[in-house]
Amino acid sequence: MSSTFGKFLTITTFGESHGPAVGMILDGCPPGIPLDDATVQRDLDRRRPGQSAVTTQRQEPDRVEILSGVFEGITTGASIAMMVRSVDARPKDYSTLKDVFRPGHADLTYWKKYGVRDHRGSGRASGRETVARVAAGSVARRLLEREGCRVQAYTVQVGDLVATERDLAAAEQNPVRCPDRAVAGEMERAILEARDAGDSLGGVVEVQATGVPAGLGDPVMDKLEASLAAALMSIGAVKGFEVGEGFAAARLRGSQMNDPMTSRGFASNHAGGILGGISTGEPIVCRVAVKAPSSIAVAQRTVDVTGGERELTVEGRHDPCLCPRVVPVVEAMTCLVLADALIRQRAIEPWRPGPA
Amino acid sequence: MSSTFGKFLTITTFGESHGPAVGMILDGCPPGIPLDDATVQRDLDRRRPGQSAVTTQRQEPDRVEILSGVFEGITTGASIAMMVRSVDARPKDYSTLKDVFRPGHADLTYWKKYGVRDHRGSGRASGRETVARVAAGSVARRLLEREGCRVQAYTVQVGDLVATERDLAAAEQNPVRCPDRAVAGEMERAILEARDAGDSLGGVVEVQATGVPAGLGDPVMDKLEASLAAALMSIGAVKGFEVGEGFAAARLRGSQMNDPMTSRGFASNHAGGILGGISTGEPIVCRVAVKAPSSIAVAQRTVDVTGGERELTVEGRHDPCLCPRVVPVVEAMTCLVLADALIRQRAIEPWRPGPA
Amino acid sequence: MSSTFGKFLTITTFGESHGPAVGMILDGCPPGIPLDDATVQRDLDRRRPGQSAVTTQRQEPDRVEILSGVFEGITTGASIAMMVRSVDARPKDYSTLKDVFRPGHADLTYWKKYGVRDHRGSGRASGRETVARVAAGSVARRLLEREGCRVQAYTVQVGDLVATERDLAAAEQNPVRCPDRAVAGEMERAILEARDAGDSLGGVVEVQATGVPAGLGDPVMDKLEASLAAALMSIGAVKGFEVGEGFAAARLRGSQMNDPMTSRGFASNHAGGILGGISTGEPIVCRVAVKAPSSIAVAQRTVDVTGGERELTVEGRHDPCLCPRVVPVVEAMTCLVLADALIRQRAIEPWRPGPA
Amino acid sequence: MSSTFGKFLTITTFGESHGPAVGMILDGCPPGIPLDDATVQRDLDRRRPGQSAVTTQRQEPDRVEILSGVFEGITTGASIAMMVRSVDARPKDYSTLKDVFRPGHADLTYWKKYGVRDHRGSGRASGRETVARVAAGSVARRLLEREGCRVQAYTVQVGDLVATERDLAAAEQNPVRCPDRAVAGEMERAILEARDAGDSLGGVVEVQATGVPAGLGDPVMDKLEASLAAALMSIGAVKGFEVGEGFAAARLRGSQMNDPMTSRGFASNHAGGILGGISTGEPIVCRVAVKAPSSIAVAQRTVDVTGGERELTVEGRHDPCLCPRVVPVVEAMTCLVLADALIRQRAIEPWRPGPA
Repeated sequence: MSSTFGKFLTITTFGESHGPAVGMILDGCPPGIPLDDATVQRDLDRRRPGQSAVTTQRQEPDRVEILSGVFEGITTGASIAMMVRSVDARPKDYSTLKDVFRPGHADLTYWKKYGVRDHRGSGRASGRETVARVAAGSVARRLLEREGCRVQAYTVQVGDLVATERDLAAAEQNPVRCPDRAVAGEMERAILEARDAGDSLGGVVEVQATGVPAGLGDPVMDKLEASLAAALMSIGAVKGFEVGEGFAAARLRGSQMNDPMTSRGFASNHAGGILGGISTGEPIVCRVAVKAPSSIAVAQRTVDVTGGERELTVEGRHDPCLCPRVVPVVEAMTCLVLADALIRQRAIEPWRPGPA
Repeated sequence: MSSTFGKFLTITTFGESHGPAVGMILDGCPPGIPLDDATVQRDLDRRRPGQSAVTTQRQEPDRVEILSGVFEGITTGASIAMMVRSVDARPKDYSTLKDVFRPGHADLTYWKKYGVRDHRGSGRASGRETVARVAAGSVARRLLEREGCRVQAYTVQVGDLVATERDLAAAEQNPVRCPDRAVAGEMERAILEARDAGDSLGGVVEVQATGVPAGLGDPVMDKLEASLAAALMSIGAVKGFEVGEGFAAARLRGSQMNDPMTSRGFASNHAGGILGGISTGEPIVCRVAVKAPSSIAVAQRTVDVTGGERELTVEGRHDPCLCPRVVPVVEAMTCLVLADALIRQRAIEPWRPGPA
Repeated sequence: MSSTFGKFLTITTFGESHGPAVGMILDGCPPGIPLDDATVQRDLDRRRPGQSAVTTQRQEPDRVEILSGVFEGITTGASIAMMVRSVDARPKDYSTLKDVFRPGHADLTYWKKYGVRDHRGSGRASGRETVARVAAGSVARRLLEREGCRVQAYTVQVGDLVATERDLAAAEQNPVRCPDRAVAGEMERAILEARDAGDSLGGVVEVQATGVPAGLGDPVMDKLEASLAAALMSIGAVKGFEVGEGFAAARLRGSQMNDPMTSRGFASNHAGGILGGISTGEPIVCRVAVKAPSSIAVAQRTVDVTGGERELTVEGRHDPCLCPRVVPVVEAMTCLVLADALIRQRAIEPWRPGPA
Repeated sequence: MSSTFGKFLTITTFGESHGPAVGMILDGCPPGIPLDDATVQRDLDRRRPGQSAVTTQRQEPDRVEILSGVFEGITTGASIAMMVRSVDARPKDYSTLKDVFRPGHADLTYWKKYGVRDHRGSGRASGRETVARVAAGSVARRLLEREGCRVQAYTVQVGDLVATERDLAAAEQNPVRCPDRAVAGEMERAILEARDAGDSLGGVVEVQATGVPAGLGDPVMDKLEASLAAALMSIGAVKGFEVGEGFAAARLRGSQMNDPMTSRGFASNHAGGILGGISTGEPIVCRVAVKAPSSIAVAQRTVDVTGGERELTVEGRHDPCLCPRVVPVVEAMTCLVLADALIRQRAIEPWRPGPA
């Protein structure tokens, strides 16, 4: 069950970096949601490698095929399977990594857990698995759009460079996906510089969901922020999650943190759109910390399967900074969480007393 | 299912702030774990209100009763129910809050979600629900101890005050539960000062788990950090979660972030004990951001159920800073996640090929 | 998770035969369902021991207490806990069974599974656990009633005696709960005769649900009949389940089994109200085979914990036939399944295309 | 989540009768289980259409492709995806069924539930979905074999013809898969006769699992018989389930039904290998009632989507009796349930007190 996420709307993924295909089954999707290959493809293209100089140069067309659950252009209520065949797999690139554990990667831990490891690329731990998430997120996004919800993620920090503007339209117009035009160029240069040094950079991705109705999220254990945290922390390389003020809340007094309410709604949104695990109707704002890619071309100390010490330089075509390509994955997971919460809320509403 | 957490070892809680009792059922606990009321009571006493000047003065003895699942001093494999009766409930304290939504609380969102609201205290959204978590965590802790794992949480930030030392033995010797003796006193004074001003303070709680074997955690969706994030973000007032370097990782280069491996183990622990969703064998280190309590005695703008604007001052006995009492809850949830992961890992080990 | 049933509306039970209490948490119940102790008590009283000569003479008042989830007479959407304290527990009755495995009981299998066993009564395997199911079913029944659904179970076979009439009003007017007045008296006499011989009788219980809207049940794995089967087969002593024609369907040709459809609905109901895992709108009709109680006063061959052979006569106050007391449990589980399916169907309906 | 089955070892299926592919993801499989295409193919071939005169003449090679989770011939612990492409799909065969509901099929109920329906074949309700189950069952079977468990199903009744012998080796040597050589031929003739009359026959399939260790199955809600019932009742056309004596238990007295225990084990197996939801170590024996196929060539009364009455004769290539092809599906689902239970039992054993 470790490859499944969601309670009512559930995604289950499969596939390894250099296996024949990656894909997923999305179960619990309501009927009547318009869906076709082209729509999903558009979302996948935003995640695709090789989009710009700041991403890996590995080329994968990532052509999606819808295998089930859609008939005459709409979902039927049946489980939806989608698959992407691998094309640019070069397993021989990885034969040198058969017996050695790359620092920062999951090589050692998979070995410790399973006693066996698909060493081609990162196997099951590869970021390639997120193809499946983006495909599923595409369905969830369609469902949310019908209810007027919109989800967008963007890069707000790369290394020490921090965006201050939130010009969301601008975010998709630069390769870093930064909503601050002034900083975007600097970020791009910093990434290229790190890449040229054989090194890599971390960053922060923010996601904003607008048009989310009040009432989504299920206390006590399935608080909306808990589901979002689980969803986003399950993305490889993510080391932190926060909602609203997040860690900055530690420095605020109650009188500063509490959002006053007026007859026209909330006067501020320090909470980030969630109170007590339930959406307030304000925009939901979350951020994730993304570590620098572990595959770097500088020499590192490590060990092999026999425990012997080795010096390792990871060759190959790797992302110098993950943020630009994590953006669509963060959106996908956010869409899945919100769509799940929306469906669950619809389930109890027919019995709900009081004002609608 | 919104009150349930865990996949194999599952806790389901019940109870409202001013209802007759709070409690839980823990299902999936293996047989043979020693357990009695006194052991659980010790853990509950660390969470109890009224422990010191920096916590609420509300008095609740919080006497636990084990209702099932234990026979002759050990768990039997049956579901374990525990309950704590309410004693110091004063529902009349809350009649003035019947029609008004307190800022920062879940009052409004429960109303929007359910169309009905138990307005006594915070009803189901009350921190009192964490009694149930601590009781369950006590069982999980016993199980982990038998495997040599130890889990401790402590306060590392209150407002602007940040602990730099990690003297874990010291943490339980001051009311703030701070592992930095030098800062602990300052934190205590800051909390009392905020309380006297009718205000409240936020902070950061860190948790460390040592003796955790490598191999725990289930990729891809049930990564150990994702489960920990969900568990800890489901605690009321928590606004952020991070593991290892967390948000600081955004500023590190790959060559700084990657932990080198040597024949004697990892040379550093920037990862916080988890790689690819699986424990490395190094200490697991996480932090949560805790917002300042929303119940403050300063006047705030809000609305009532008719949408009319109101000025509200929240009376009553409230915590001026949640960190000291969140500490045992963070420990409990961490124990539940790790015990669940440990049991799941045991499930697959009999078939595991390769070296043990 | 082994004590939990349901996907959206989930019941988790606790308690052993001679422990301090039995009870449950029902999670996922929508808000706004009227509920009070007296309503639940009425349902529990139908299950209570000591109702007539054909049931065990053990006396348990089985007073229910609602611990959470209800405020001012209606459910709030929070998890609902209910508990019944044990009163007539006589643990010493069972000390003689400490080291011996009773034939037909779960004594041996619990021992094999857990290596430890609560030997007082049947411990966790006791029929007393069904108190919790009936309490939860009472909530589900209230929810179904609001939608016009009605669920009734009744005894249709005891030993060789088979009811042919289905006078449902009559069923609650005789101690056997048989809807065939002519046969009810014979069944009663047969049970008393078996009891006097120190033996016990099996039987069949049927359940009928009317007013169930078409569309409930989720293909493929959560077919309505699969959920009903799991629910009813989880009741102790149940050895078989069938829906509609059930095992009689094996002898029917397709042309006999298929229910013709007319403009006024189905012309027959061989299917038992379910096609392809989804309700048709016709009455749902299921039956369960109930084995004779294993606790009998005739000498039986068995073994003790050391493997030594023993002859055993089970003393104490036991049901000579389980059917009359299984009836309310079958109703409760059926109500839980249907309410769960109803809530899940409500979840997807807002997006449903086509005619309502 | 309606296409998912299992708690620890979970299968999620996808695919419609005339869609591009059917398949599944099996999650939770331990590492180290040998697996290759050829092994799975052997199991699929036993389910394939067109095997003999008593099955449908539709031809599907049903070539399986393993997409993930296997590396160098063994499972890795990652989710295992397998897929079978459709080849002999003839969607135009079904255009006449676009607006009419076939009696006995799920056409009407899918329409009522979803408001949309894939009318090609039976869409998602097609028996073709069981390809995915057999593929998953093949993995579970490999796991069970390593522990010495063996699962075999066979036809014990067709219409009025009942097998009395249980010569399991014989079962795979006749097209009906009947373990009674004397009756097998009669069954075959009866099926062909019904087919020639444009009609179809029901039957009963029995499954036997030997070598199952004592202790599998999780009380209270996840009793082994409840999981088996859910698994087998989720197979299309199955109308009843029983274990051990099943419905015959209704006629037995306690003194007849209880299996005596001796120092050499159980003296009989009326229980069918399960007591209190947990395996006893004796063979597990279950039976399912299989209704006659609904697709028959005789004229039937039905309605169309506008409610108008129609007379319908279902054309095409259909199974005249499902039993022979249900046999491998029953085996697959039984294997999945037992493997799940086995893995779960392994999870708690390390803490189990007492004798092993």
